[in-house]
Amino acid sequence: MKTFDFGIVGLGVMGRNLLLNMADQKHAVAGLDLDTEKVLSLTQEANPQHQIKATTEVKEFLELLKQPRAIMILVPAGKPVDTVIQSLLPHLDKGDIIIDGGNTYFTDTDRRFTELSAKGIHFFGMGISGGEKGARFGPSLMPGGNKEAYERLRPIFESIAAKVDGEPCVEYLGNGSAGNYVKMAHNGIEYGIMQLISEVYDLMKRGYGLDDSTIQKVFEDWNDTELQSYLIEIIGHILKKTDTDGQKLINVISDWAKSKGTGKWTSQNGMDLEVPLPTIDAAVAMRNMSKNKPERIEASAKLVWNAEQGNTDLPSAIEALKGALHFSILITYAQGLALLTKASQEYNYDLNLETIAKIWRGGCIIRSVVLEDFRQAYAKNGELKNILLDDTIAKAINENQSSIRSTVQFAVQKGIPIAGLMNSLAYFDAYRSEKLPTSLIQAQRDYFGAHTYERIDTNGIFHTEWND
Amino acid sequence: MKTFDFGIVGLGVMGRNLLLNMADQKHAVAGLDLDTEKVLSLTQEANPQHQIKATTEVKEFLELLKQPRAIMILVPAGKPVDTVIQSLLPHLDKGDIIIDGGNTYFTDTDRRFTELSAKGIHFFGMGISGGEKGARFGPSLMPGGNKEAYERLRPIFESIAAKVDGEPCVEYLGNGSAGNYVKMAHNGIEYGIMQLISEVYDLMKRGYGLDDSTIQKVFEDWNDTELQSYLIEIIGHILKKTDTDGQKLINVISDWAKSKGTGKWTSQNGMDLEVPLPTIDAAVAMRNMSKNKPERIEASAKLVWNAEQGNTDLPSAIEALKGALHFSILITYAQGLALLTKASQEYNYDLNLETIAKIWRGGCIIRSVVLEDFRQAYAKNGELKNILLDDTIAKAINENQSSIRSTVQFAVQKGIPIAGLMNSLAYFDAYRSEKLPTSLIQAQRDYFGAHTYERIDTNGIFHTEWND
Repeated sequence: MKTFDFGIVGLGVMGRNLLLNMADQKHAVAGLDLDTEKVLSLTQEANPQHQIKATTEVKEFLELLKQPRAIMILVPAGKPVDTVIQSLLPHLDKGDIIIDGGNTYFTDTDRRFTELSAKGIHFFGMGISGGEKGARFGPSLMPGGNKEAYERLRPIFESIAAKVDGEPCVEYLGNGSAGNYVKMAHNGIEYGIMQLISEVYDLMKRGYGLDDSTIQKVFEDWNDTELQSYLIEIIGHILKKTDTDGQKLINVISDWAKSKGTGKWTSQNGMDLEVPLPTIDAAVAMRNMSKNKPERIEASAKLVWNAEQGNTDLPSAIEALKGALHFSILITYAQGLALLTKASQEYNYDLNLETIAKIWRGGCIIRSVVLEDFRQAYAKNGELKNILLDDTIAKAINENQSSIRSTVQFAVQKGIPIAGLMNSLAYFDAYRSEKLPTSLIQAQRDYFGAHTYERIDTNGIFHTEWND
Repeated sequence: MKTFDFGIVGLGVMGRNLLLNMADQKHAVAGLDLDTEKVLSLTQEANPQHQIKATTEVKEFLELLKQPRAIMILVPAGKPVDTVIQSLLPHLDKGDIIIDGGNTYFTDTDRRFTELSAKGIHFFGMGISGGEKGARFGPSLMPGGNKEAYERLRPIFESIAAKVDGEPCVEYLGNGSAGNYVKMAHNGIEYGIMQLISEVYDLMKRGYGLDDSTIQKVFEDWNDTELQSYLIEIIGHILKKTDTDGQKLINVISDWAKSKGTGKWTSQNGMDLEVPLPTIDAAVAMRNMSKNKPERIEASAKLVWNAEQGNTDLPSAIEALKGALHFSILITYAQGLALLTKASQEYNYDLNLETIAKIWRGGCIIRSVVLEDFRQAYAKNGELKNILLDDTIAKAINENQSSIRSTVQFAVQKGIPIAGLMNSLAYFDAYRSEKLPTSLIQAQRDYFGAHTYERIDTNGIFHTEWND
């Protein structure tokens, strides 16, 4: 009794895979789930070398665990997390640690952190990225909570996390809900990149009329370039997949996009923190647009554009798409990282952006070769306000300006929607504008609402009677 | 005693002007403010024909009012509203009516509505648009609350509202917080249009190198066309205004845009309701971008684009800008009206879009000749899901497609940020896409997270092992 290193509550696919991953790493682990079948399926997947015990009884589960106990909850975010915490609480001892491994909204974590701290229980919110396979063979882990208490968890998490150049993709990130917040921003970036990839696919397909096999080959090739990343890699696999009739599966998949809300949270919170995230906003808007199928069918008949047909030099067109995608992906990361920079001040997370870039290099959905460039940029300058101000990134961005501009112009002429690519360019051109025309907005606000304005030549608050 | 028709609590400029407006219309009105100076300044502005009484004493104020009392609160949104309500409550009688005339977040109104209903007090949230001058000489009023109780308010509100073709710009809009919600969407549209205008101004100035006087003349001329609207009209005035040194005032106004949050609320709530509002999102993002002045200065040196110089046929360039602006303004209204359509279902407001278009035709900040087209569109088809599906609007939109496309292409080549124009075009091209590439996003979600997908050829939920 009391010899097991780690416990997980909730033996769905994520919980089960994380436990098996831990067991592979020689940790003795315990699982709890009210569903007998889930308990059984874990036991069946375990091999004889594993030290795994699973049960449906809370007390039995807690009796197994070494003190201070380390218990991760992997149930749907929201009320179920509170229910599990309440069921554990009467049986816990001071110093025990609860980790919420779900996609929990960060303010919920702050609330629980405060409530549990008062009872002497350490509470962590931990982002986990990498999906089912990542959980089983090496995820990226983003823990936030009490720094000292993290030492109890460190060896276990470091052993199961993905490794890049021998470094584990997990590190203590910061106070309170820092881990959930970083995971939220991760997912916001993920939304943006997925939207961008889908637009480039659309340009190849509807714009240049390429067939799926050709498009598949392009993405496969791109994964050997500066675009190398998990989300590009899997497009190569997805576009290969055939249906039972031998045709490409992608063409029978519905275009109504679902979402679990983390991208939306990112955009909404960016607006609260006054950090512009237009590419991520566009990704959220376009998922919502995709749900309007019947309206879109009606609109497609009424709102018509007859695009000119032109001759295309295909190799250079594809090269431009590649540059446009690279440009826009960098801009999307820049938005997400700028959000983290602001959130760190606002919520006192004390985030280290170099660390975040480091642990995102492997295991997670947005892993990509560019993360190493970001890590180095932040290593050189920990105060970097925006990744676009780093010389290496600025160079990569500047080199791809012609590509993004010609790609946007092509799409506009063709009538193909590219909200993500457009917003990436708009972000860039606005960010590099020393003077924006928002002075006119200030004048309007003062005109109709007497909201006052500031001046560039002197301090103070001014109001004008515009019609005198 | 108990002979005054209407009372206002909060005698700032809005409250004072509304009371004077009511007094002009022969209503006997009472004002309450804790600040003696505000009470005094109302009394001084009143003329001998006015029946106005103002006081600093709650009891005296309430004794003046005819029963059931009609009392409007005009104090900053948030806690001050609750404080005023609490101070009135002990002295009110069942059937009395409180109207919150501020920019209150709609869920706050729902809470107060419920709390006060339980006490037998009718509570209204009313959007008021038109700024100081509107309040004084004819605002657009957007009341929501109890339909029967509205009859007590109707004659007063109809007498003070702006008139268009003899019809007052006020009508009962719907249940609970309907009035605040409609005003929020109004402000979201306002944000979008202001952003669009500022971008077109920037294109004239930075893109075509026009001087301020020429630009002023263009906007003045545009106000005699299909662009006729309050927000265009005042640009003509703003760009005329000179500073003490005789130079254009606009050029010394800071480009850090302020905001009070109603645009942000619109975007955030659009995401909650899954209604795409990309132009409004972009307006919010660009106000936030404008706050990054020191970073933008640094970025302007690092992130450089050398635009080609080309020959411009100026008259046709300006004609294209006009078309692009008209196109994008229509799209912005479409987004805001689509939000109202969805919100009406979601929150059981039972909104009538024809009525809303009607009362927006005058008095409010987004008043414009196109509102009459919208009113007619909704009169023809009350079930219209999106204004772009109306034949008249579709025709106007289709006719301006070439203009928006050439304008976006010009800006992209020049390196001038036009997030609002771009997002309007992206919305349009996405809306008229029968098939969007979000199928690829669904495939990716299923690949890495087993989130499943739907198919176009058969019902059900599917999951694929993509690497088998």
